[in-house]
Amino acid sequence: MYSEADKKRIELIKQHIGEFPDFPKKGIVFKDLFTALSSGEVCRAVKELFLSYIKSTCPHVDAVVGLDARGFLFSLMIAAELEIGCVPIRKRGKLPGETYSVEYKLEYGVDIFELQKAALKPGQKVLIVDDLMATGGTFEAATRLVEQAKAEVVQCVAIMELTGLRGRDKLKEYNVHSFIQYNDD
Amino acid sequence: MYSEADKKRIELIKQHIGEFPDFPKKGIVFKDLFTALSSGEVCRAVKELFLSYIKSTCPHVDAVVGLDARGFLFSLMIAAELEIGCVPIRKRGKLPGETYSVEYKLEYGVDIFELQKAALKPGQKVLIVDDLMATGGTFEAATRLVEQAKAEVVQCVAIMELTGLRGRDKLKEYNVHSFIQYNDD
Repeated sequence: MYSEADKKRIELIKQHIGEFPDFPKKGIVFKDLFTALSSGEVCRAVKELFLSYIKSTCPHVDAVVGLDARGFLFSLMIAAELEIGCVPIRKRGKLPGETYSVEYKLEYGVDIFELQKAALKPGQKVLIVDDLMATGGTFEAATRLVEQAKAEVVQCVAIMELTGLRGRDKLKEYNVHSFIQYNDD
Repeated sequence: MYSEADKKRIELIKQHIGEFPDFPKKGIVFKDLFTALSSGEVCRAVKELFLSYIKSTCPHVDAVVGLDARGFLFSLMIAAELEIGCVPIRKRGKLPGETYSVEYKLEYGVDIFELQKAALKPGQKVLIVDDLMATGGTFEAATRLVEQAKAEVVQCVAIMELTGLRGRDKLKEYNVHSFIQYNDD
């Protein structure tokens, strides 16, 4: 499904991703996209890969939702290129004005994510982006917020996916895509 | 100093910025760039304004440092276009691997910001970006981190500046620029 150019971009990004054992806690090998982004060539590849993929799979999108904080890297970059809205989802208390909110279960306790009510219009087609899909919990929370706004999730896209954590099980109703998969655990 | 096209972009962005009284606390009128970014036209204008400004004032840049979280909106967008590095500065504990760190004074207590040691090379020319310059404290912390890496800060750029808070007083040694100024207080 990828063009030869996109396959090369994915390979380039993958080669540059940093791996840090026991971060943020023992037993986890943290996959660090920022290590890769210190290369300008990788930055360019990430942009071109996203745009190429969006154009071929969901050319009609009205807004990109970026998940705080690393999703912000991609959301404005994509939105500026496609001239569509750039919309944040953030933890409780960080967005001004009226917001939709949803609970997100953590290992212990819950967190609350918010979306500004004025950010999306009913019927808008929305792409949700982040660097990593792990348990899928934040993507799931994001889909609920978009639907509270009566907008439509056309796709969830992450650069990397930890397939062993089965995040897709939480997102069965949605198109979900990642460019690089890890199955460590 | 701005082209006619850039003057129009600045006016467009300014017209769309949201104002929220008493957020995050009483007496503050929060200037919300995200309100503006829900317009695709504004997203495009932000990108073109940044690129136009960088090309005319500091065409030789090796990396863009984005301040967590809203600075990430601009850092990868700029880095991908110029094919240069995209480097984050984040609060303590969020970046894996060896880091430089610096204390940042808050109203009460201190916070710690970090930069990955591998992210910048000595002598690299660095642009630091964020959405807002208020007290200048986070920009100041960022300049110190870049200098710990023996890289050179060529400019600090924010979309908006609260001039009454005199952030520039902390940044006298540096080129500092904002596109929109507010002098509310």
